[in-house]
Amino acid sequence: MYQATITVTLRKSILDVQGKAVELGLHTLGMDAVRNVRIGKSITMTVEAADETEARRLTENACAKLLANTVMEDYTFTVTKV
Amino acid sequence: MYQATITVTLRKSILDVQGKAVELGLHTLGMDAVRNVRIGKSITMTVEAADETEARRLTENACAKLLANTVMEDYTFTVTKV
Repeated sequence: MYQATITVTLRKSILDVQGKAVELGLHTLGMDAVRNVRIGKSITMTVEAADETEARRLTENACAKLLANTVMEDYTFTVTKV
Repeated sequence: MYQATITVTLRKSILDVQGKAVELGLHTLGMDAVRNVRIGKSITMTVEAADETEARRLTENACAKLLANTVMEDYTFTVTKV
């Protein structure tokens, strides 16, 4: 069994309104030193697979088909045996 | 300047309905090998600070005060010089 950890982020060229709102919130709380806040998703899941190659293939498939909107988002993932 | 990467996750004891919905979606797409899907937030931000200790203190503060709901969520972060 493998543990996949996926990070889905908005592409750099796309305005992250949620991040902007959080940045404003942090500034309101006096934390002016914080800049360039961007918010993405962190997804963890277990994958039943014969080997790491298969686990990576399944994870890649899940990202491309459902977890990320590849028009607007990028994704990276790591797969480790558990 | 430091780059902080924060991961906010729902505590293990709390049902992750969003994760359950995604898991069901993946099963519907034929990816039955995927289990235990849990969805959290991945936040990146830059922090202006004199040293790493100060950057970590500011990031910790941001997490505790705004980024995570510590009743229901856990957070981890890394801070690297950029």
